[in-house]
Amino acid sequence: MARVINPKAEEILDKEFKVLNHGFVRLVDYMGGDESIVQAARVSYGKGTKTVSEDRTLIRYLMRHQHTTPFEMVEFKFHVKLPIFVARQWIRHRTANVNEYSGRYSIMPEEFYVPDENVIKYQSQSNKQGRDSEEVPPEIRKRVLEILIQEQKSAFDGYQEMLDYNIARELARINLPLSLYTQWYWKIDLHNLFHFLKLRMDKNAQYEIRVYAETMAQIVKTVVPIAYEAFEDYILNSVTFSKHELKLLQKYFPESISEDEIEKFGFSKYEKMEFFEKLKKISEM
Amino acid sequence: MARVINPKAEEILDKEFKVLNHGFVRLVDYMGGDESIVQAARVSYGKGTKTVSEDRTLIRYLMRHQHTTPFEMVEFKFHVKLPIFVARQWIRHRTANVNEYSGRYSIMPEEFYVPDENVIKYQSQSNKQGRDSEEVPPEIRKRVLEILIQEQKSAFDGYQEMLDYNIARELARINLPLSLYTQWYWKIDLHNLFHFLKLRMDKNAQYEIRVYAETMAQIVKTVVPIAYEAFEDYILNSVTFSKHELKLLQKYFPESISEDEIEKFGFSKYEKMEFFEKLKKISEM
Amino acid sequence: MARVINPKAEEILDKEFKVLNHGFVRLVDYMGGDESIVQAARVSYGKGTKTVSEDRTLIRYLMRHQHTTPFEMVEFKFHVKLPIFVARQWIRHRTANVNEYSGRYSIMPEEFYVPDENVIKYQSQSNKQGRDSEEVPPEIRKRVLEILIQEQKSAFDGYQEMLDYNIARELARINLPLSLYTQWYWKIDLHNLFHFLKLRMDKNAQYEIRVYAETMAQIVKTVVPIAYEAFEDYILNSVTFSKHELKLLQKYFPESISEDEIEKFGFSKYEKMEFFEKLKKISEM
Amino acid sequence: MARVINPKAEEILDKEFKVLNHGFVRLVDYMGGDESIVQAARVSYGKGTKTVSEDRTLIRYLMRHQHTTPFEMVEFKFHVKLPIFVARQWIRHRTANVNEYSGRYSIMPEEFYVPDENVIKYQSQSNKQGRDSEEVPPEIRKRVLEILIQEQKSAFDGYQEMLDYNIARELARINLPLSLYTQWYWKIDLHNLFHFLKLRMDKNAQYEIRVYAETMAQIVKTVVPIAYEAFEDYILNSVTFSKHELKLLQKYFPESISEDEIEKFGFSKYEKMEFFEKLKKISEM
Repeated sequence: MARVINPKAEEILDKEFKVLNHGFVRLVDYMGGDESIVQAARVSYGKGTKTVSEDRTLIRYLMRHQHTTPFEMVEFKFHVKLPIFVARQWIRHRTANVNEYSGRYSIMPEEFYVPDENVIKYQSQSNKQGRDSEEVPPEIRKRVLEILIQEQKSAFDGYQEMLDYNIARELARINLPLSLYTQWYWKIDLHNLFHFLKLRMDKNAQYEIRVYAETMAQIVKTVVPIAYEAFEDYILNSVTFSKHELKLLQKYFPESISEDEIEKFGFSKYEKMEFFEKLKKISEM
Repeated sequence: MARVINPKAEEILDKEFKVLNHGFVRLVDYMGGDESIVQAARVSYGKGTKTVSEDRTLIRYLMRHQHTTPFEMVEFKFHVKLPIFVARQWIRHRTANVNEYSGRYSIMPEEFYVPDENVIKYQSQSNKQGRDSEEVPPEIRKRVLEILIQEQKSAFDGYQEMLDYNIARELARINLPLSLYTQWYWKIDLHNLFHFLKLRMDKNAQYEIRVYAETMAQIVKTVVPIAYEAFEDYILNSVTFSKHELKLLQKYFPESISEDEIEKFGFSKYEKMEFFEKLKKISEM
Repeated sequence: MARVINPKAEEILDKEFKVLNHGFVRLVDYMGGDESIVQAARVSYGKGTKTVSEDRTLIRYLMRHQHTTPFEMVEFKFHVKLPIFVARQWIRHRTANVNEYSGRYSIMPEEFYVPDENVIKYQSQSNKQGRDSEEVPPEIRKRVLEILIQEQKSAFDGYQEMLDYNIARELARINLPLSLYTQWYWKIDLHNLFHFLKLRMDKNAQYEIRVYAETMAQIVKTVVPIAYEAFEDYILNSVTFSKHELKLLQKYFPESISEDEIEKFGFSKYEKMEFFEKLKKISEM
Repeated sequence: MARVINPKAEEILDKEFKVLNHGFVRLVDYMGGDESIVQAARVSYGKGTKTVSEDRTLIRYLMRHQHTTPFEMVEFKFHVKLPIFVARQWIRHRTANVNEYSGRYSIMPEEFYVPDENVIKYQSQSNKQGRDSEEVPPEIRKRVLEILIQEQKSAFDGYQEMLDYNIARELARINLPLSLYTQWYWKIDLHNLFHFLKLRMDKNAQYEIRVYAETMAQIVKTVVPIAYEAFEDYILNSVTFSKHELKLLQKYFPESISEDEIEKFGFSKYEKMEFFEKLKKISEM
């Protein structure tokens, strides 16, 4: 089997997708595609089926059943420019390879994240880690921007002055703010990338990392359209109910559902079977 | 905060729990407990709440929301004796530390897995990787056991003969069967252990690894009872519905559920809120 | 075998070891000790030898031959308070578990790293990532401290003002400088900890992370004295020569060294053998 | 920068390189090359130098100083057919992605490893895990082969008989010997691949895995010739001396070496400096 090249992916290769005021995401390289997921799975399951529709069925089966290793066979390499506070959240995903711009070796450029006025929000009361939806009055938003911009300028002036004295870069940089932009190469396999996207596209993720995740999701969708669709259907738009919730819901679930009814929703043969198994499991709880 | 010692865990420390015909699981050591999960989480969330019931609420919140890092702060070390074909599945979990008995250094003892008669089953038709529930006639089961035992004996005789010639151990062992027992020390953190248990306690896991997972689950339950209960409620006994399934079920879900009704099922304040959010999300799909 | 408890390690448990102006390292918990390294190795190698001197010989053999898995069987959990720019270097070690104080959940305390005057140095010319040894004149050092302290104050004032407006914490914090202190729980196994120490105790590591590594090294030495000694002898104080260097040095190396001479340097039987093998390898290059 | 395609690598893509009697290694895909190592390093170090000779100098510098992250930016995917006892050693390298042929899903083909007569050796006395160099008499080697082949046949007959009864595949396979061939897709980054090669090309590695490592080394050399050369010079053919050994050797090392002498051995400017630093370090021990 020849190397997998996806013409639509080739088109976006090396293109900068803008994120926030100065950031970007750029797909530097990728290895594999939907076909390589199938190829890897078939090592385990034996050959047999081969048409495109069967490939789709297999990929969806793997996603549904968390057979994650075939997704690890596809690799993505991104070049990302992002504020340091975003980089600090991002790096917590340990199953990736990173080369970051170094403030010990190089002089940091004067580029800071300044939020759009409309994303400046109050602290949420219900969600200790998030923002409220209520509007902040324009004069306060203005003042916030003023504080941010002024402070960024004065921090950079201090940095510049210390560099002018020829103070070691690794020391001169220590007062630079978390809103400064850095950049890195970031390489990750598709399984772990889906995990990253799931956590960072979540409504509880901080807005400033969510926009990166959303941009990358579009890139991933272009490179592996079938796998991405399965990710949307079985992970991103799925809902998990706990034991307590299922016991409460038990009486609402239908005792039986006709095959006809199911057909309408586009279930595969296996999905149908699995769906009935779930209903059975719940009814027996 | 002093080191966490759990008296019930201390009691089972170093005890051999028998599995299969010659295997066992033994908890060699552990670090931390329910309290250390809370302790780690509170570094992130700030102090505040401190009673035991609040600890339980926090642990359950973390489990429900896949805030997995605090669970990584608890560590387990097991000594396990297991057939090689089980070891081959087990080792696929890469986020653990392993020291295995080596057939290059040491002579393998003559101990083989022989299945109980009642777990000898036909190939399942519906499940390509599993066993059927239909009974296998006694004479066939007998013959299967005969083949297995005879073959194990003759393979070990060959091994012994080669060792008698002083052939290198690393070579003499190559014909030993996958049913031979090996043993290892296996160290893993609680988050990854839960992942292991989830996959290997599943009904689709091979029986011979499932019994190990089930034995370990009892040990884990003893060491971290609150975390284990949360694992049961939110992971093990949860059900995830895909986008298609939710669309189909949409009309069955109740439009509203009274607070009274919910109370009965023991929801926490947050769980209630989250449950309503799920229903809302589904109704809007 | 009972759990390994090391009385000297128990003594330093939970003690804060001061680092930099506001930072610290605290050993929260540990699992295992020198004995558990031996215990794990003996699963692979078979039992046999058992005296303490033989334990030391085995541990040193394992270290010398990079048989790293037995060292993975010992686990350390630290509580560390450190400036964010140090945390950013530290987190690059991916094989550890981390729970960090979160500026999204909690208000960051006003604590900043301010360097001692005598570590304020010029940029090194020869080493792009380091500091020069040349003295910086007092008036420049004074000015550097002035810039740092002033800027830290003004950045925190801006943070405080935004919090007073009730701006979301996750946003208010974005201009806080990299010199701000954060804290985390950090758990790692001994093999990976040695790797961390090797890289971060190196003279090319930034001073501000090196002092943490040195503090931790003392803790590790207390918990696993034999393994730490082996680490010093075979890793930290070893020198590796490249092919080119060996070819150049070839003619300087002695053709033979008497057993007597070697005895004086405290080689074990195996080390002696291995040493002669190295000389032979080099003479044949 | 466009994607890195190496014409010589393209030539060997998908080619089966035979190993042992039935095994092979096949390069299925790769991402990146020498240029991508440089590209990733330059994100950290800033741009500047760009000629091919400077690329080589940079790659060699990175290798020498264990700046490993840029090497992680190159990825290899192999298809390998190998005996199960080799697979068991191989899988211990956890930093790779694997999809293996499954004996639960599929029927194992009747293909076994049978060693060449000349690799049948006695147990080594000095090396507990290895083979002696002494010749084994032909009649014993013959007998060993007889035992192996006979046993393989009879184990497969038993397997076949159980399959004929329609016994579950996951059970029927448990007596298959470790000499049976399996196959897998194995994906790994260059840094971890070099680590694998270092350990498995070592003279202490078992012959049957060493031949795989050697075959892969040739493939790696084709894909990243400059990085591989650096690996040979600084890792594979380097020698590390312990503290004890250095103290013993101290008096043999030259006090000074003329620049002229060094020139002859092809040192770069930095290597020269580093070499003198090593000599200084040793003289001061």
